[in-house]
Amino acid sequence: MNNTPLRIEQYATVLFNTNLNPRGIPDSVTRAIKENIETISMYPDIYYSKLKTAVAEYVGEPLDNIIMGNGSTDLLKLFGALLMPKKAMIVYPGPMEYARVLNDYSAEVVFYELKDENEFILDVNDFVSQLTSDMDMVIISNPNNPTSKKISLEDMKTLAGACKERGIFLVVDEMYIEFVENYKEITAIQLIDEFDNVAVMRSVSKFFAVPGLRFGYAVMNNPEFKEIIERITTKNNIASLTALAITNMFKDTEYINESISTIHTERSLVYLAMSTSRSIHLYKPDANFMLVKLLKDDITSAEVAKHCSQRGVIIRKCDDIKGLSNKYIRFCFMNPKQNDLMVNTILEIV
Amino acid sequence: MNNTPLRIEQYATVLFNTNLNPRGIPDSVTRAIKENIETISMYPDIYYSKLKTAVAEYVGEPLDNIIMGNGSTDLLKLFGALLMPKKAMIVYPGPMEYARVLNDYSAEVVFYELKDENEFILDVNDFVSQLTSDMDMVIISNPNNPTSKKISLEDMKTLAGACKERGIFLVVDEMYIEFVENYKEITAIQLIDEFDNVAVMRSVSKFFAVPGLRFGYAVMNNPEFKEIIERITTKNNIASLTALAITNMFKDTEYINESISTIHTERSLVYLAMSTSRSIHLYKPDANFMLVKLLKDDITSAEVAKHCSQRGVIIRKCDDIKGLSNKYIRFCFMNPKQNDLMVNTILEIV
Repeated sequence: MNNTPLRIEQYATVLFNTNLNPRGIPDSVTRAIKENIETISMYPDIYYSKLKTAVAEYVGEPLDNIIMGNGSTDLLKLFGALLMPKKAMIVYPGPMEYARVLNDYSAEVVFYELKDENEFILDVNDFVSQLTSDMDMVIISNPNNPTSKKISLEDMKTLAGACKERGIFLVVDEMYIEFVENYKEITAIQLIDEFDNVAVMRSVSKFFAVPGLRFGYAVMNNPEFKEIIERITTKNNIASLTALAITNMFKDTEYINESISTIHTERSLVYLAMSTSRSIHLYKPDANFMLVKLLKDDITSAEVAKHCSQRGVIIRKCDDIKGLSNKYIRFCFMNPKQNDLMVNTILEIV
Repeated sequence: MNNTPLRIEQYATVLFNTNLNPRGIPDSVTRAIKENIETISMYPDIYYSKLKTAVAEYVGEPLDNIIMGNGSTDLLKLFGALLMPKKAMIVYPGPMEYARVLNDYSAEVVFYELKDENEFILDVNDFVSQLTSDMDMVIISNPNNPTSKKISLEDMKTLAGACKERGIFLVVDEMYIEFVENYKEITAIQLIDEFDNVAVMRSVSKFFAVPGLRFGYAVMNNPEFKEIIERITTKNNIASLTALAITNMFKDTEYINESISTIHTERSLVYLAMSTSRSIHLYKPDANFMLVKLLKDDITSAEVAKHCSQRGVIIRKCDDIKGLSNKYIRFCFMNPKQNDLMVNTILEIV
C-alpha cells in the first residue's frame, strides 16, 4: 500500500464523492469576503439589485425571470409550496432529495425507471407516455445524478410540451449543467419563454465549490407564479456576504473557463484510462462525475470504497440509491494527479 | 454650522435611525469569518449541532425548543405558514412588518391602539378584553418599537393565559430584549413551558449589529408545531459562515456585557440631558432607542430630521408610522460623543 508511486501525500484525503469542482472556492470570492466583512453590519439591499443583475447576466435572462433562494432544496420547497402537488413524477436512479421534498408536501410520487440496458439514458417518448393529466409536477435533473447523463434540448422540448398539454409543471434541476460540454446549447432556460410551465433550477454549490454559501436560483417566465412567489417568499433572506460572493463569482470568467476546460480534459482522460478494464462497465459521463458498474461476481461497492479510502480516495458506493445496488460506484473528476491516483486505486481492486 | 464644537468629524454620518448596537460587529466574529472562509467549500452540518447548541446555551433552553431561520421575517413567515391565521391582532404604533406578513397570509388584521396619553404603555387588561376566540394569532414586540416600552413578565403571563383560553397563538418578538435592563427577568422564554401557545422570536441583527447575516431564532415548547415546522422548513438554509459567526458571537461575553453596560449608561444620560427641554416630550425608553414628541406647533419631524442630517445625525421621523404623526421622532443611543452631538443638534432646533 505504501509503495504506490502515485500516492500524493501520506493520509491526504481527496473527496471524490462530493462532485465539487476541484478548483475549489474562486479566489475572487475569498478576497471579496475578506475585504468586505463589514457589510454584515448593514441590511442587504431588499431588492438585491447587484446580485440579481449578476445572476441575470450570467444566465442571459431579464431580471424579472430570476428567483433566488437559500440553496436548491429551498427552491424546491418553494415550488412545492407554489404547486401543492398531489401527484408528481421523478426518475430513478436520480437525486434522492426530490422524493423527500415531495413527501413533505404529501404528494403521491410516481417513479419512472431509467434502464441500465439503455445506459440509463432517458427515453423521452417512453417517459412521456407515462405522464397523465392527474400529475401536477415533474422534477428532472439535467445532467442526471448519479448517472451523469444529459438530456438533449430536443428531448427536453418534447418533455416540456407533453407536460404543458397535460397541465404539468416541469422543474429542470441544472445543478451540474456547467460541467456539460457546450452546456449553453442544452440548458432548458432556452425553453422558458415558449413554456410557462417550466422552471429551471440552478445551484452554485457544485460548479463554484461553495455549498456552504447556501445559494440557489431559478429561472422561469410565468408572471402569475412569480407574483405568488413574491408573496410567499421572505424578501431579505440572503446574507450580504453571500450576495457579495455570488455577484463576484459570476463575473469571474477566468475561473469559469478554466474549470470547464479542466473538467472536460479530466473526464476524457479518466474515461479513456478506465475503459481498458474488462471488469467494470463505464456509463459515459456528461457531467463532472462517472457511474461505474462492477462486473465481477465476487466484489461489492463497499469493498472497493474501503480499499480506496485506505489510499485517501473517498468514492460513493451506490447501494442506497433506488435503482442501483452494491455493484455500482460513483466518483467525480478532481485534479490530474488526484485522478491518476483514483484510477489506479480503483483498477487495482476491481 | 462649521463652528459647532461637538461636531466629531466633517461630514461624518452617524445612523441614529437603525437601532443597531454602536459597538458594531463583534471582533470575535470578524476574526472567525476571516480565518474560516474555506468553510464555504463544505456543506453545513445539516443539524447545525454547534450552532444550535450555542443558541440553546445562550437562551438557557434545551436544543429541542430552538427553531432557526434566515432572519426574523423568515420566522414570522414560518409562523404564518404554520398557523395560516384567518384573524390576527397586533398593536400600533408598532413594527410595521407584522401587518405586511399577515397580509401575505390573507389574514384579517385587527389593530389595537397604544394610547399616547398612557405613554404608549400597554394596558394588558384592556388589550385582553379585545381578544376574541375567532382570532388565531397575536404578535407583540417586547420591548416595542418605536415606543421603546417593555411589557412586564406578569403582564405577558396574563396575555399568554388569555390567548391560551381563546385558542390564540402568541408570538412575542424580542428583537431588542437584550437592551432592556435585567432582560432575563422579563423574557417570555420563561413562559414557554407553561404555555405551549407561545413562541418567542429573537434576532441578532440589532444587539450584535449584524443585520447582514440574516439570522433569527425562535424558542417554543410545542412538540406538535415543532414537528410541522421540521417538515415545512428547509433543513440546511443557513450559510456556514453565518453559522460560524453566530456560534462565536453568543460566546463573546465581553462584547455582550460591555454592550449592555454602554447602552444602560447612554440611555440614562441622553434621557437626563433631553428632559430639561420643555419643547419636547420624552417617552421614557426601555430599549436602545427613544421616541420623542415635538410639542411646538410650528415644527415638524421632517424639519428636525433635515436639520440633524446636515450635522451628520440621521434620525427617524415617524410620520409614516400608524398611530404617530409628523410630531414624533425616534433615535437610538450610539457612542458617548455621538450622543452628545445628537442631543445638542436636536435641542438646537426643537
